[in-house]
Amino acid sequence: MKAKIFITLKDDVLDPQGKAISKSLKNLGFEGISDVRQGKLIEIKIDNDNKSKVFNEIDNMCKKLLANTVVENYKIEITE
Amino acid sequence: MKAKIFITLKDDVLDPQGKAISKSLKNLGFEGISDVRQGKLIEIKIDNDNKSKVFNEIDNMCKKLLANTVVENYKIEITE
Repeated sequence: MKAKIFITLKDDVLDPQGKAISKSLKNLGFEGISDVRQGKLIEIKIDNDNKSKVFNEIDNMCKKLLANTVVENYKIEITE
Repeated sequence: MKAKIFITLKDDVLDPQGKAISKSLKNLGFEGISDVRQGKLIEIKIDNDNKSKVFNEIDNMCKKLLANTVVENYKIEITE
């Protein structure tokens, strides 16, 4: 199975990288941009056909390594 | 409106960061991992209610700044 993990900074955490992107886009002439946030996307292929087991395993990976739950949120999506 | 942009490395491009994550997960005792790829997730809030216009604008941003289309693919998702 394949898991996608979307890791984003919590709303109240400053995101300098997002701010830099926002500034660059404005410099390029793009208008109406009110907020930019940058996060991470991690795709994992795992040899296991049990969807709920895979979900729990991935959730564990997020807590132990992939996400910093003090400042980050994560969302898991399992596909075939 | 809000746009989510998922930027991933093309399949034939090496991903050392993904390899490092994969190794760390294995060291932590996780099993069955066959591939890990790391990408970027960018969220943009834009003051415009025309969905197709926003999509085109974001597509332009990707081509001009956000994605390196030589080695990266991108996918755009527009939500309210």
